[in-house]
Amino acid sequence: MITPYDDKYFMRKALDEAKRAYALDEVPVGAVIVADNQIIARGHNLTEQLNDVTAHAEMQSITSAAEFLGGKYLKKCTLYVTLEPCVMCAGALNWSQISKIVYGARDERRGALRYENILHPTTELVGGVMAEECSTLMKDFFKGKR
Amino acid sequence: MITPYDDKYFMRKALDEAKRAYALDEVPVGAVIVADNQIIARGHNLTEQLNDVTAHAEMQSITSAAEFLGGKYLKKCTLYVTLEPCVMCAGALNWSQISKIVYGARDERRGALRYENILHPTTELVGGVMAEECSTLMKDFFKGKR
Repeated sequence: MITPYDDKYFMRKALDEAKRAYALDEVPVGAVIVADNQIIARGHNLTEQLNDVTAHAEMQSITSAAEFLGGKYLKKCTLYVTLEPCVMCAGALNWSQISKIVYGARDERRGALRYENILHPTTELVGGVMAEECSTLMKDFFKGKR
Repeated sequence: MITPYDDKYFMRKALDEAKRAYALDEVPVGAVIVADNQIIARGHNLTEQLNDVTAHAEMQSITSAAEFLGGKYLKKCTLYVTLEPCVMCAGALNWSQISKIVYGARDERRGALRYENILHPTTELVGGVMAEECSTLMKDFFKGKR
């Protein structure tokens, strides 16, 4: 069966969010949270706009998804995020007990996956989906900063 | 010189916040952020009230302190928190580059300090201030839950 709702489909939506961050001169990271093939939350990095280190794409999406669901656990949800989550976001995702995390590019410097058991034991992890596109967006952004 | 503004003084203020959480039937963790001996932010755990796993005392205090200062870095601030920060909060504190963290009780199960280098390299860490009082409040809360 051909389904339009594969990991690439939703990663493209996360990339759209990342581009919104880019347009605001924010480090271009975007995220969506999906339940039953429906996007229930979107977020993009707003740390500069909001003057707030906690305003990562994932954090906003987690808060927004919980609001949508009326409960703080995201046990039947998947997060799509263009960049490997940092320690803060990995910790929040752990608390949320989210069922699956799909990320695009690795973050060698600030990614949390170098720490063992940082995610919830029931959380499935998939990496490298559209990694090239996600990574190129980041590189373009930082090139423009030089 | 006798100064009223020592670590115990501010930890008592964090404990007051924790008691506010307790009164709301929230896991009783409280925090204050201090700059130049002035409390610039207060927070207590609100994860149940807000249906949001990210609503820890520390996260709210970080956002609030940055708002007060008009900048996202907390380089000249000290966080007082009644419980050892979790991974999410430690990650957020790392991004904030906060100069000092003082916590009360250890959190053997969810505390982040079991991970090496999880805090910013310039952040000073002090633990165990009024640990007994902070820990007793937690124990009383969970006893009431059984």
